[in-house]
Amino acid sequence: MKDIYLDISFSSAEKVGIEHGFTEAELAKLSKTIEENHHILLNERKNKKYGFYDLYKDIHTIKKVEHTAEKFLSKGYKNFVVLGIGGSALGIIALNTALNPPFYNLLPQNIRKGHPKLFVMDNIDPDTFSQMLSICPIEETLFNAISKSGETAETMCQLMIVLDMIEKTVGKDKVKEHLVLTTSPKIENAPKSLFHPIVEKYELTQFDIPLNVGGRFSVFSPVGLFPSAILGFNIQEMLEGCEKMDELCLNPNLELNPAYQFSAIHYLLDKNKGKKVSVMMPYSDKLKDIADWYRQLWAESLGKKYDLNGNIVYSGQTPIKALGVTDQHSQIQLYREGPNDKIINIIKVNNFDNILKIPNILSEISELDYLRDKTMNALLAAELIGTRDALVLSQRPVITIEIDEVREYTVAQLMYMLEVATAMAGKLYGVNAFDQPGVEEGKRIARELMRKIQV
Amino acid sequence: MKDIYLDISFSSAEKVGIEHGFTEAELAKLSKTIEENHHILLNERKNKKYGFYDLYKDIHTIKKVEHTAEKFLSKGYKNFVVLGIGGSALGIIALNTALNPPFYNLLPQNIRKGHPKLFVMDNIDPDTFSQMLSICPIEETLFNAISKSGETAETMCQLMIVLDMIEKTVGKDKVKEHLVLTTSPKIENAPKSLFHPIVEKYELTQFDIPLNVGGRFSVFSPVGLFPSAILGFNIQEMLEGCEKMDELCLNPNLELNPAYQFSAIHYLLDKNKGKKVSVMMPYSDKLKDIADWYRQLWAESLGKKYDLNGNIVYSGQTPIKALGVTDQHSQIQLYREGPNDKIINIIKVNNFDNILKIPNILSEISELDYLRDKTMNALLAAELIGTRDALVLSQRPVITIEIDEVREYTVAQLMYMLEVATAMAGKLYGVNAFDQPGVEEGKRIARELMRKIQV
Repeated sequence: MKDIYLDISFSSAEKVGIEHGFTEAELAKLSKTIEENHHILLNERKNKKYGFYDLYKDIHTIKKVEHTAEKFLSKGYKNFVVLGIGGSALGIIALNTALNPPFYNLLPQNIRKGHPKLFVMDNIDPDTFSQMLSICPIEETLFNAISKSGETAETMCQLMIVLDMIEKTVGKDKVKEHLVLTTSPKIENAPKSLFHPIVEKYELTQFDIPLNVGGRFSVFSPVGLFPSAILGFNIQEMLEGCEKMDELCLNPNLELNPAYQFSAIHYLLDKNKGKKVSVMMPYSDKLKDIADWYRQLWAESLGKKYDLNGNIVYSGQTPIKALGVTDQHSQIQLYREGPNDKIINIIKVNNFDNILKIPNILSEISELDYLRDKTMNALLAAELIGTRDALVLSQRPVITIEIDEVREYTVAQLMYMLEVATAMAGKLYGVNAFDQPGVEEGKRIARELMRKIQV
Repeated sequence: MKDIYLDISFSSAEKVGIEHGFTEAELAKLSKTIEENHHILLNERKNKKYGFYDLYKDIHTIKKVEHTAEKFLSKGYKNFVVLGIGGSALGIIALNTALNPPFYNLLPQNIRKGHPKLFVMDNIDPDTFSQMLSICPIEETLFNAISKSGETAETMCQLMIVLDMIEKTVGKDKVKEHLVLTTSPKIENAPKSLFHPIVEKYELTQFDIPLNVGGRFSVFSPVGLFPSAILGFNIQEMLEGCEKMDELCLNPNLELNPAYQFSAIHYLLDKNKGKKVSVMMPYSDKLKDIADWYRQLWAESLGKKYDLNGNIVYSGQTPIKALGVTDQHSQIQLYREGPNDKIINIIKVNNFDNILKIPNILSEISELDYLRDKTMNALLAAELIGTRDALVLSQRPVITIEIDEVREYTVAQLMYMLEVATAMAGKLYGVNAFDQPGVEEGKRIARELMRKIQV
């Protein structure tokens, strides 16, 4: 299978001008910094500071995931509902959109090959949640609540509602047949999860999120893998994609390391050319939620008030999810003619499952000659090139990420690459890419308000 | 019914500091410019330069929409498929998400009260389009292709594929029972649409998009209204919402005109305080696609290389769609701690259709005291306040748009308000808010490439 491929040439000064693109000299200078940071990251990885790199090697966990999924699948659940938010939801949403057929939940069960419909509840909108409950009868549904700390207010609120309904419907003893919890492991002297006493009380299956893996880096932990197994994705192929990308990313040479190329261009163009916005624009419906997953990864990891020395930096590019060709008719006007403050990542997919022929009709309308007897696939490809070239003509830097076809191997490569790119970008910006101190204040105020409500 | 209400106080210098918020003096100065531009816009409206203001008054068209929808609905179609992109798609996607129940397409036909499922095909991904065709048999499906010029390559490509299938399935004479076209009117000496000869050949029903109404301002033309009628939305109530908001927006007094407040704060904070990004963040799943519709409206209208005097300005804020509370776990870290370059529009909904009680369970876990016996609704409201207050604490300007409940009246008010705000913002930036010259180059290149393909 072909690996994914990064083309940074359309971000170069030759293509978009020295004010907007990188020069070879800038890149050469940065490549030394990257090599140094590569060794620091490698060392920190070895010392288990970050667990995300090695999740794909955890055979024990992967076996448990596959075994447990098999057991639950044999019971024929019609619905699989994830209760989770942020990093507990975005990964499986991205994988589902990428790897399942379009309109998956609308397809008959036999076309879904016996796999359940998927609902990811990543909000606390009472109308959405009520409707989900009304179309997913408890008896036919398996729930998977996911929260590393077990303290996530939104997920806990959902879990309490669902747990009560399950217990009232099937009885305390059978709650375990409808609910699986994914949270931090129960280890002495380690932080406890509020899920632990629930696991114990109802004898639930628990999956662990390693302590050194944060939510937005957890897609290859059971957070993403258990739902993937329930949906019947090829886990082994996903892990092979991770392995291959890990191999590529172990190369300290910028020219051969796609993840570091991604971080380098983004960092350079932000710092030196004022590119404050990073647009992720796949030309494939299947990849649109990978753009949303990336949005959290890039924003939450790099959007930081302080650098590692405690200086105020207010760092962080603003990531944007877009979709080709759809957003050509919404955002390209701005991207071409508005402030030149964006770097645009176009994801190009070479092969789709279907080739759609445009029929030879309406021959009396000569304006349609350019479409007749061609394919929808060719039009999509032509529009990608047209948009990329038009952007470059307006001196807007573009990175092209090329993928042969959307499947487990390539999608895992893409996600793994973006994770490594984020870790390296953290080093370049000099910030902690693995914390999120800015979200605490809002949570604190919300809890305070909730406590004050009189029942 | 309560009107929507705008609170700009959390964008003031008192709340977020003089470097990031507006001062009374700045606003007072701008209010004079706004009043002048108000009269210019009023005059241009009177001279029919812009048609969007008065779409809701076009009784003749509205009657035709309702009558035609009734006729088609009586035939019991199971699926309604819109072929359209950009302004031809975003409005009805937004209305559908707002006004239909969540998971609408998954609900049984009787709960949908006989209205068809909705598919909006706003991309040319061959896999998505193939799957749509496989789940929407021609006999049970009504298609509505929408393009003002009839030249939109994506929509024409879709239309040719679908037209061929319809003709082969039901015969030429019955194509009109499965296909309705919405395009510019057939008027002598006016620009022709490529849809016109198709309407003639197959004797199709055609709806007109007035010549003085652009795609992104067309939601209250048949572009949005015919699909709305097919889906059973209360058109009369929508029009009342438009009428009421029009009334409010006819007031030249900034303090009493929500649309002008929106434009004023955005323009001021962009020009004077470096707020280059406009985030639209509803705390309601139903409003999430209004944020996407707004994204086109704001980006394509204001993202301009030249001002009206021909000076190069590269104007335009970058609009971002976000979702509360979901994106608290994805973007708030960046919004609070990253560059202070954003204005955040929070949409607050006061009443949902459902109130979800959090049960009094797990009393052994004292950390859950703050949730027990409260409601999901209260948690959502508390999180909104927590996030708003935390943003303000970090000196990030916030506008709150308050909506009593999500229904036809309020949704129409919101959309109409944002249209008027965009028209006024165009005047303030001194750009043409009604063209999109930047999208032509990409289209040209794509067509050129398509012509070169050998069949």
